[in-house]
Amino acid sequence: MKYYSYEDFRIDTKKLLLNVKEFNPEVIVGIARGGLTLAHVLAEGLDIREVQTLRTELYDNTQKRDAISIFGDCSFRDISRVLVVDDISDSGDTLKAVMPHLASKHENIEFKSSTLFYKKTSVYEPDFWINEADDWIDFFWERDFKTLS
Amino acid sequence: MKYYSYEDFRIDTKKLLLNVKEFNPEVIVGIARGGLTLAHVLAEGLDIREVQTLRTELYDNTQKRDAISIFGDCSFRDISRVLVVDDISDSGDTLKAVMPHLASKHENIEFKSSTLFYKKTSVYEPDFWINEADDWIDFFWERDFKTLS
Repeated sequence: MKYYSYEDFRIDTKKLLLNVKEFNPEVIVGIARGGLTLAHVLAEGLDIREVQTLRTELYDNTQKRDAISIFGDCSFRDISRVLVVDDISDSGDTLKAVMPHLASKHENIEFKSSTLFYKKTSVYEPDFWINEADDWIDFFWERDFKTLS
Repeated sequence: MKYYSYEDFRIDTKKLLLNVKEFNPEVIVGIARGGLTLAHVLAEGLDIREVQTLRTELYDNTQKRDAISIFGDCSFRDISRVLVVDDISDSGDTLKAVMPHLASKHENIEFKSSTLFYKKTSVYEPDFWINEADDWIDFFWERDFKTLS
């Protein structure tokens, strides 16, 4: 298990900003919970005011990889490019479900995805990612607030 | 202008967690953009999976304090207590508009609000807040990602 500190995050997010800038997104969709902090700071860095969120849940007690529910509705007005943001593409199930879901609901919008981490065993590779993950990542937003110590 | 670092944020959020815990919320609604990082880490600290977001915009070119548009719809199923999260109650216009908006749409739910900062001149006092703001706050999520240096 690797602790991923705020300082690591700040450095990596600045690299990610340079990459996603070229796509020039108008809206950011963050995937809750994991993608929320990254969605926030990417929006600040790119000067994008419009941030929306989706939430996904894995079905309990199933072995099926595609058993994902998506909660929340995005709505876009006169928008051409949307960046979807999560912390990690681990199994890849989340983005593999979310990206076609959004594309089919909003046919005239180009969606691209970005994460901080990508696992080579993932079933989905984000358009933009910074680090390959070969261990469990203990993100600062999980570790630093978990205990009330 | 006061720089508000991640370390300040971590310490204050732990205090805030102790306070909001008693309300025992089941869902967190973060107000974009400013409230997103706080919404994320409060959800982690409280072990709440369901985070939703709203976005507000001030009308341009108006002097009216109540000229706020609210974007996004929240939906709740079998939920009794919801915590609404923003970074600061500055003018107070945002929470003053959002709280009754949510209460009128979801009559059987108790909504409480929490921020890190509260200005004494605000027209709305959050149920939970940590610091009094007497200066412009330069949040780390704004400063640390604004420039690509």
